[in-house]
Amino acid sequence: MVVELISVGTEILLGNIVNTNAAFLAEQCAYLGLSCFYQTTVGDNEERLAETLHTALKRSDVIILSGGLGPTRDDLTKEVAAKVLGKSMYMDEKQKESIKTFFEKRGLPLTDNNWKQALIPEGAIILYNDNGTAPGIIMEEGEKTVILLPGPPNELLPMFKKDVYDYLNRKTPNTISSQVVKICGMGESQVEDMVKDLMENDNPTLAPYAKTGEVHLRVTAMAENDKEAKKLTKPVVKELKSRIGSYIYTTNPDVTLEEAVVDLLDKNHLTFCTAESCTGGMLAARLVNVPGVSEVFKEGMITYSNKAKRNRLGVKKGTLAKYGAVSEQVAKEMAKGGCFFTKSDVCVAVTGIAGPDGGTEEKPVGLVYIACNVCGKVTVKEYHFSGNRAKIRENTVSSALTLMRLCVLEYFSEITFGKKEK
Amino acid sequence: MVVELISVGTEILLGNIVNTNAAFLAEQCAYLGLSCFYQTTVGDNEERLAETLHTALKRSDVIILSGGLGPTRDDLTKEVAAKVLGKSMYMDEKQKESIKTFFEKRGLPLTDNNWKQALIPEGAIILYNDNGTAPGIIMEEGEKTVILLPGPPNELLPMFKKDVYDYLNRKTPNTISSQVVKICGMGESQVEDMVKDLMENDNPTLAPYAKTGEVHLRVTAMAENDKEAKKLTKPVVKELKSRIGSYIYTTNPDVTLEEAVVDLLDKNHLTFCTAESCTGGMLAARLVNVPGVSEVFKEGMITYSNKAKRNRLGVKKGTLAKYGAVSEQVAKEMAKGGCFFTKSDVCVAVTGIAGPDGGTEEKPVGLVYIACNVCGKVTVKEYHFSGNRAKIRENTVSSALTLMRLCVLEYFSEITFGKKEK
Repeated sequence: MVVELISVGTEILLGNIVNTNAAFLAEQCAYLGLSCFYQTTVGDNEERLAETLHTALKRSDVIILSGGLGPTRDDLTKEVAAKVLGKSMYMDEKQKESIKTFFEKRGLPLTDNNWKQALIPEGAIILYNDNGTAPGIIMEEGEKTVILLPGPPNELLPMFKKDVYDYLNRKTPNTISSQVVKICGMGESQVEDMVKDLMENDNPTLAPYAKTGEVHLRVTAMAENDKEAKKLTKPVVKELKSRIGSYIYTTNPDVTLEEAVVDLLDKNHLTFCTAESCTGGMLAARLVNVPGVSEVFKEGMITYSNKAKRNRLGVKKGTLAKYGAVSEQVAKEMAKGGCFFTKSDVCVAVTGIAGPDGGTEEKPVGLVYIACNVCGKVTVKEYHFSGNRAKIRENTVSSALTLMRLCVLEYFSEITFGKKEK
Repeated sequence: MVVELISVGTEILLGNIVNTNAAFLAEQCAYLGLSCFYQTTVGDNEERLAETLHTALKRSDVIILSGGLGPTRDDLTKEVAAKVLGKSMYMDEKQKESIKTFFEKRGLPLTDNNWKQALIPEGAIILYNDNGTAPGIIMEEGEKTVILLPGPPNELLPMFKKDVYDYLNRKTPNTISSQVVKICGMGESQVEDMVKDLMENDNPTLAPYAKTGEVHLRVTAMAENDKEAKKLTKPVVKELKSRIGSYIYTTNPDVTLEEAVVDLLDKNHLTFCTAESCTGGMLAARLVNVPGVSEVFKEGMITYSNKAKRNRLGVKKGTLAKYGAVSEQVAKEMAKGGCFFTKSDVCVAVTGIAGPDGGTEEKPVGLVYIACNVCGKVTVKEYHFSGNRAKIRENTVSSALTLMRLCVLEYFSEITFGKKEK
């Protein structure tokens, strides 16, 4: 089945916003096993929108339009799509009620133009919007399906996940079941090398996706029904777990690396602190993305200057003079000092050269040391990142999260299998 | 003149990457006064790419294609575009030399498939690539222009700015001169209110763009040549400066708010530190985006817990107990303590409720206090932000940068016009 995406909005044509909806929808359609050959963006213009929809209907089975469902006169996606498919519109009482409730709940004044959003093409499936007033719409016409979704990502994403994904999955002759396996601490080629035989399978397929500092493997099975499809993915996921082991940090699509790290610390009743130089707070900021981090996060220290490294973390003057601020030794002392001064169980410390200046032949831009102290056991690793200042700092943050995770895991396996004590 | 964008790449169709190039190109074309009615994405497929280019040539004057210029067999944008326009290709010796130098400089092995990138359509303008091996190409055919740009943003952006912008500006019957005026500390509607009479002008036009915590005004003039166009924008920019005053932080398109803040501190020989609670390092991380920040940045403290606020910043136990961690009083003590303990001239301190939990009726999610201490003079402001955790934290960071800037400016005008001493 072939799907085509049409994004409607003058703000995209003018470059005022980046079209993240298209990337999200395209990725979801790929997971569903749908082929997508074209993505088009048009403005809120009746003639051009109608022409684009006509073209899409000729060459694709499912057309997903996003944007242009708002209350203003500019918003005409629904009107144009209904016209192209020859559908009349009626006022839907339930949708009218839902708009009224939405405004009442928020104490906002309800203007007359909002009722436009309760007009529904005859025979359409209505997707009620939990996060806004414009409903989504599915229209079926012969072999073709036209799906209209609201433009704001905080409305489009949940609506797609809640209703459209399953609708499309039911529509395809076979059911697709897809399972993600998220890996940190290994490069893409290393992961591919370990699973290349599994990547040759047709059903389930196995595809790697490289993210900053992570690799996601997606196992996708096709079968007559969901149960059969899951039966196919399950042994592959099990096999991946046995091959890749603890480098897999989650198989839950909604869990991020920072969430996995915070969760691991929380489960082991460990508090932590951060000591950052070149990342300048980015590492702590990412960990503070996690709601509820306050249970385990004691404090963060951004010791950009040598003086701050000495005063705040007790790094020795001699160590700085002998090895320089960007060195294994300084990273180690930072991680030790962090735990000591904040009375945390875990400290992750970062020192490096993010550039563009400050690099030398011996210590080039991109050289980073990350140390992790887990209850007194300190691990230091050396990294060489490429790219610009932003890229180097991003990679450093991902690597620091990965190192934290692996050091905590290692510490506990030592306790359990080695010394048998904390 | 009408421009159309075609993005080529299977990775965009699969949703593996977000198409930021399209937003960049669309914005630049809008600045140039070009109309853009369609943006299309197609994969690396000869037939569909040729069809898309044919359609675009029928309805637009300038077609900008990005992506698919690499050395592999998959990359066929140049080959397809040359075929559609009926151009043969030749091996360009200068381009060949430039590829050789690129590999030699980096000590990388040069494989044969790279020579493909030295093949140029007859009569084309070559845009040499400073950041990669694929050259950009401009082909003119009658009234139509086809421009090919490499896909990686770190190659496309500089190439467009260096060569394509001016080329397109020369091509338009009139020359466009565009000047941005960046404002912080005022809302979009407030800015619009102050300049609405100027927004009614046809030439130069004045358009506002809302960014997180900022408003950018763009003054765009059209004239016979650049000198005449600049003559039109100059008095408007002057008028904006006189109306909006020190809320304008730059008129340089490449300068960010954090750069303006760091620059202001540096010029006034002020060192600074940060004390963050809910933003958890994001504020420091944004300031550390600025290369050379080490000249003025002493250190950052992420005092997420009450204990850290007391130990690191000297916030009084009584103040925390009486007013709570999210209060004007605590923000003030944080900013005072920050300067005291780090011996910095300036400290910006943030405490707030980013959610989703932790809000109460009295102190709802989104309530944030930001304090700024400039050489002992402390200003505290209360903010109410909406949106999710990420949005609240982003807005907090922008507001903190804005407050830093305004407090430093205010402090120095007091010195100059008031006490006449530091």
